[in-house]
Amino acid sequence: MSADQNALPELGVAVVGHSFMGAVHSHAWRSVDHVGTPRFRTRRVALAGRDAARAQAAAVQFGWEEGVDDWRSLIERDDVQVIDILTPGDSHAEIAVAALEAGKHVICEKPLAKDVAEARRMTEAAQAAAAKGVRSMVAFNYRQVPAIGLAKQLVDAGRLGEVRQVRAVYLQDWIVDPDFPLTWRLQKDRSGAGALGDIGSHIIDAAQFITGQRLTGVSGTVETFVKRRPLEATRTGANTGLGAEASSEYGDVTVDDAAVFFGRGDGGALMTFEATRMALGRKNGMRIEVNGSKGSVAFDFESMNELHFFDGTLPAAENGFRRILATEPEHPGVSNWWPAGHGLGYDHPFVHELQEFLGAIADERDPSPSFADGLQVQQVLEAVQRSAENDSAYTQI
Amino acid sequence: MSADQNALPELGVAVVGHSFMGAVHSHAWRSVDHVGTPRFRTRRVALAGRDAARAQAAAVQFGWEEGVDDWRSLIERDDVQVIDILTPGDSHAEIAVAALEAGKHVICEKPLAKDVAEARRMTEAAQAAAAKGVRSMVAFNYRQVPAIGLAKQLVDAGRLGEVRQVRAVYLQDWIVDPDFPLTWRLQKDRSGAGALGDIGSHIIDAAQFITGQRLTGVSGTVETFVKRRPLEATRTGANTGLGAEASSEYGDVTVDDAAVFFGRGDGGALMTFEATRMALGRKNGMRIEVNGSKGSVAFDFESMNELHFFDGTLPAAENGFRRILATEPEHPGVSNWWPAGHGLGYDHPFVHELQEFLGAIADERDPSPSFADGLQVQQVLEAVQRSAENDSAYTQI
Amino acid sequence: MSADQNALPELGVAVVGHSFMGAVHSHAWRSVDHVGTPRFRTRRVALAGRDAARAQAAAVQFGWEEGVDDWRSLIERDDVQVIDILTPGDSHAEIAVAALEAGKHVICEKPLAKDVAEARRMTEAAQAAAAKGVRSMVAFNYRQVPAIGLAKQLVDAGRLGEVRQVRAVYLQDWIVDPDFPLTWRLQKDRSGAGALGDIGSHIIDAAQFITGQRLTGVSGTVETFVKRRPLEATRTGANTGLGAEASSEYGDVTVDDAAVFFGRGDGGALMTFEATRMALGRKNGMRIEVNGSKGSVAFDFESMNELHFFDGTLPAAENGFRRILATEPEHPGVSNWWPAGHGLGYDHPFVHELQEFLGAIADERDPSPSFADGLQVQQVLEAVQRSAENDSAYTQI
Amino acid sequence: MSADQNALPELGVAVVGHSFMGAVHSHAWRSVDHVGTPRFRTRRVALAGRDAARAQAAAVQFGWEEGVDDWRSLIERDDVQVIDILTPGDSHAEIAVAALEAGKHVICEKPLAKDVAEARRMTEAAQAAAAKGVRSMVAFNYRQVPAIGLAKQLVDAGRLGEVRQVRAVYLQDWIVDPDFPLTWRLQKDRSGAGALGDIGSHIIDAAQFITGQRLTGVSGTVETFVKRRPLEATRTGANTGLGAEASSEYGDVTVDDAAVFFGRGDGGALMTFEATRMALGRKNGMRIEVNGSKGSVAFDFESMNELHFFDGTLPAAENGFRRILATEPEHPGVSNWWPAGHGLGYDHPFVHELQEFLGAIADERDPSPSFADGLQVQQVLEAVQRSAENDSAYTQI
Repeated sequence: MSADQNALPELGVAVVGHSFMGAVHSHAWRSVDHVGTPRFRTRRVALAGRDAARAQAAAVQFGWEEGVDDWRSLIERDDVQVIDILTPGDSHAEIAVAALEAGKHVICEKPLAKDVAEARRMTEAAQAAAAKGVRSMVAFNYRQVPAIGLAKQLVDAGRLGEVRQVRAVYLQDWIVDPDFPLTWRLQKDRSGAGALGDIGSHIIDAAQFITGQRLTGVSGTVETFVKRRPLEATRTGANTGLGAEASSEYGDVTVDDAAVFFGRGDGGALMTFEATRMALGRKNGMRIEVNGSKGSVAFDFESMNELHFFDGTLPAAENGFRRILATEPEHPGVSNWWPAGHGLGYDHPFVHELQEFLGAIADERDPSPSFADGLQVQQVLEAVQRSAENDSAYTQI
Repeated sequence: MSADQNALPELGVAVVGHSFMGAVHSHAWRSVDHVGTPRFRTRRVALAGRDAARAQAAAVQFGWEEGVDDWRSLIERDDVQVIDILTPGDSHAEIAVAALEAGKHVICEKPLAKDVAEARRMTEAAQAAAAKGVRSMVAFNYRQVPAIGLAKQLVDAGRLGEVRQVRAVYLQDWIVDPDFPLTWRLQKDRSGAGALGDIGSHIIDAAQFITGQRLTGVSGTVETFVKRRPLEATRTGANTGLGAEASSEYGDVTVDDAAVFFGRGDGGALMTFEATRMALGRKNGMRIEVNGSKGSVAFDFESMNELHFFDGTLPAAENGFRRILATEPEHPGVSNWWPAGHGLGYDHPFVHELQEFLGAIADERDPSPSFADGLQVQQVLEAVQRSAENDSAYTQI
Repeated sequence: MSADQNALPELGVAVVGHSFMGAVHSHAWRSVDHVGTPRFRTRRVALAGRDAARAQAAAVQFGWEEGVDDWRSLIERDDVQVIDILTPGDSHAEIAVAALEAGKHVICEKPLAKDVAEARRMTEAAQAAAAKGVRSMVAFNYRQVPAIGLAKQLVDAGRLGEVRQVRAVYLQDWIVDPDFPLTWRLQKDRSGAGALGDIGSHIIDAAQFITGQRLTGVSGTVETFVKRRPLEATRTGANTGLGAEASSEYGDVTVDDAAVFFGRGDGGALMTFEATRMALGRKNGMRIEVNGSKGSVAFDFESMNELHFFDGTLPAAENGFRRILATEPEHPGVSNWWPAGHGLGYDHPFVHELQEFLGAIADERDPSPSFADGLQVQQVLEAVQRSAENDSAYTQI
Repeated sequence: MSADQNALPELGVAVVGHSFMGAVHSHAWRSVDHVGTPRFRTRRVALAGRDAARAQAAAVQFGWEEGVDDWRSLIERDDVQVIDILTPGDSHAEIAVAALEAGKHVICEKPLAKDVAEARRMTEAAQAAAAKGVRSMVAFNYRQVPAIGLAKQLVDAGRLGEVRQVRAVYLQDWIVDPDFPLTWRLQKDRSGAGALGDIGSHIIDAAQFITGQRLTGVSGTVETFVKRRPLEATRTGANTGLGAEASSEYGDVTVDDAAVFFGRGDGGALMTFEATRMALGRKNGMRIEVNGSKGSVAFDFESMNELHFFDGTLPAAENGFRRILATEPEHPGVSNWWPAGHGLGYDHPFVHELQEFLGAIADERDPSPSFADGLQVQQVLEAVQRSAENDSAYTQI
């Protein structure tokens, strides 16, 4: 912090999309200059949506100067240097490639694309752009949760020893009701995949991020328990959640409700995964446990400010998992915020994510995770689907 | 939300103070127009501190137009309609009374004042101002935690039956280290009281808020375990936490490290309280459990998105405390934010608090809790201290 | 263990009482020769009750050779060396003094007596008997829970540093229903006290046992929320629980439903206590937390195989309460039983208690806790009642 | 209970084996006549081991009349009606078949045998014996945990609706230390399998028991992280745990350390499983969660007295998993024991298991689970191993 903050360079930002992720990212963009050490004075130039009136209303609500119905116009503007992509997965590639080619830095929601081919195209565009100093990043926000960052630090410091096992689940229940409508997230041509892509991508990334091991093969299966659902009624107004209204017509669900798989990391770890939207009672149970030869860590997003750590080097008679409140200033991202014990919420890691992105732009380095990282996750997702279609046989990535 | 949001009336805000509460309130002021249904376009006019340079730096960091070293100048400004008081307790009365007399709406951090006399003076000023449409509010932020609001709703709906017992503790450990310096919070003439006033006031307010019962008498004791501490080194830069640096000189600690007391509510409940900064390992353990004839609720701020509810009307064989994730849209304040399971952090309830304050200004009603509520808590604090000085004898409030 | 076990001396045991504690102690007597290192071959000679038929039935069920209706006859028998007293508190003194004078070793349930005078008489008899090699012990079973033993070990080893605060509660809910009848536990002339004596005595003993500090004074209050209850219907058959059947007549409840108090230990600790049978949803919530200058421990009997330990000497960034499963062979009493993670239940500590008692007899030493320890707890209970009757004024013990 | 208990028929029992399971079963046999409603006066006739001296010592310690070194002699005795088999898996078939053919009722530890062929032979012998009124049972003790019985009751009562997902893990860590020796449990020819057979069999049985669905196919993999270990030193004395001493020679570990697999139930449920002895910090983490269309349950043996139940029919705003203390008299098996909140330990369900076995003998019905149930679990284990050997391809059972 310093009085020189006003002297920081200005950076124009535009977002594409204004539903759930639009609300969260906008909140993060409003905060990013006011916590930690800002690198730019960000200007929230415009928000784009498909419908002009709704985009304008969202721009006012979320604090953007303008709302527009044409994301292409944003790319042409000189006062926009950053494009933040928050749309359904089927439009990521088109927007990202166009933005990168126009020299705009791009941050894109996960999963990177709706399939590997598109993800590869985006990654190639990102690499070409990087050569010209244009930055790109895929928004795996859970990496930025302090407790998850701490887990990674412990692994990196050797405190877990040789990492042997990972069990990662992502449990939600928002579509248990068979009358929940067929939103874009339940349509393969819009989203690419169901629970597997939407939340499975998070735990694949988190497991690889924490352990430093990449999956080399997987065996899996998927299931759709509710096979037909009412179509979604036409929406009016903003929708900052996952909810939707049902019409009286029905359509086929074309994505999985649940996916389970296991795999091997390139460092020898045996990893299990489950992504489901049918775990009744679990709201956002993104859980990961890592067991090594010297220690273990366990995390559950429903208690996101806690990391449970077992240090196997302590005497057995006084040992146990310790519940670390990941709210100490030493924990990744925490020094931006409040004193110990005054925990963070779902949105704070999005600020950390923007800090990483803006820091990379300022420092002229590539932010992490890259589009290439997003592509690799997409390859894992595709390998799971291939395994599922091939009698669950083990499938190389 | 609507495009008419730009047509909302402007409201100029100024804050006095820029340490921990300055950071939190500033963050809330930045968000309050962008979540839920805004009532004003708030303008963050100025931040006041004791030192001009530090105030200016803080203003830049926290997003205020100006930083000034004279809070009185803010009261004279026509473009300021709201004063937010975040200073140590010994200056609350002077600032609040002056602001209210100048016709400024005032929101003031808790405890309301450093003693009952000052709190009474503030309350009288608030009542005089209210007659002229000037609003005032004391900032008991924990009332705005969704899980605590839900607890109150359950009590109000009769789900707990007759409320019989309350056990409330507020456990912290940030001064266990005897080398932690003698900051203003450890000096009676600056803060009025120690753990009792700082965090005891929170659990007194929360217990009364949830149960709807006011304490009528108390019996208590206080303790100072570390009786001398190093003086605080001169501070440079902002300090958004509770930390401080020590000098080599020592001084007497003049407030309590811990206070314990019990009392009776005007509805017959037996309530116990403990406020301590010496509970090693507990970072912000603000916990409250309420037992009634039909149900019970339990809360711990270290897991702030959870309320544990026991509904005694269910069959014993399938009954137990249920862990409600207080992240459903029906829960107080939650519809401003994210989908179920995507929890909030320490700062979000401060936004709810500002929403209550601004809503009251817009609706020309008195916000809650009032300065009179703050005075009553101050009277409880004083009764505890009198009891402690009188062999713990039961003391009427 | 050895083939010489059959060569161990025989020891004849008789129990007086056969309701809840009769069932638990009988179960422990059946096991005590078969776990750990037995010191005697115990012979379960007789069980005494008030009614011959019910005593005989209970003897058969619980595995005693005979059932009798006259406890005095047991004292006269040469084949009985041990009397185990499990009756309501009003008969403890008479039975214990008679047994000790007859040279029988005595183990007596807690609280030791129904008042201080009786407890003192028992203690004098115990001391006179001890001079002749006759042993006596008061049955504070929670001392024998491995997790509580571990807590004491940590304190004794200095791992908590200077013990500063204790918060102990014992939360039950079995009389929330106003139709629960007026059993002996709710009658002052039978039981001596209500929640205060029955379960308050447990947490007083546990707090003093773990910390090694004795209470020097207390301030407290008591409450009876349900003031009249149906009389108890005549009972038929054994009753191994706390339940009872109601008649249509009513009587006055003469004991407390809840008691709260705080006090000071002779080592400077500030301690708070609550004993209640009205904490709806809490079944056997005997909880104790101890905070010292270097560490803290926390225990809840509802998770009796866990001790939570905070070691304040570890770095803050990786510190937290660790959940020790107190099921390691190093933990007190555990080596009698199962491998790590295969936890114990409510009854196992009663075996440990008998092992201590029998070990003391075999080794010709006094077992712990002694009748004098039981008397001291009784003095604390009485001080709480005096304080409660005297406007909660602080009362020396 | 009644005075007629002495008139119950006598039943002679003999156990084969005296290590960990010998200690647990002996403890259960000592209690089974003294809790609940006994059906026999059981006589603990003899204990058999491989070594006469050690068997005799164990008999004395564990409370059996004789210790012998020849299990065949027990089968020939007229005063033995029951054989309880507690040996390593490679001897189950031989002992069980001989005993059944001799007309002895047999209870046999799990997994039923070391492979499917032996399990099938045992099942055929059991069915032949059943025709003559001779009973047999496989000892899946976790079925008898009250919380697991309650889970099954909730499923059976339709409270979970259509069961869709199961996630079951059994996490231990007792062989993380590479110096832990090569005991019989780590040798394929003695035990049949590693974690998969030993603890995987428990979660397969529990998942099928609770849901009422049988696995129809599986896909899995196995891993041995520590491939060579020191041989076990010659043992002296009893060993009631899992521990062992190491010699200086090494041998190959021939079983898995960890196994992961998923499968489909015949009612459409998607189930995931993991059995591991390498989950550092997890001592006996036998966990199972079941999600249905209307409700969910979750269990963890490390908190064995709790069942967490989510009743999806309650309003979302007050819903959550409720922590049922499975210690109410209505819960399966609990009425044998203590009042609510006074939990059970690892050994109590073994008493329930014997009660089921003895009740079936008395009532002339087949106990549950049967050898046929044990065979089916063995078939699942074998299918997992075949899948693991065949690139994890989905394998019918």
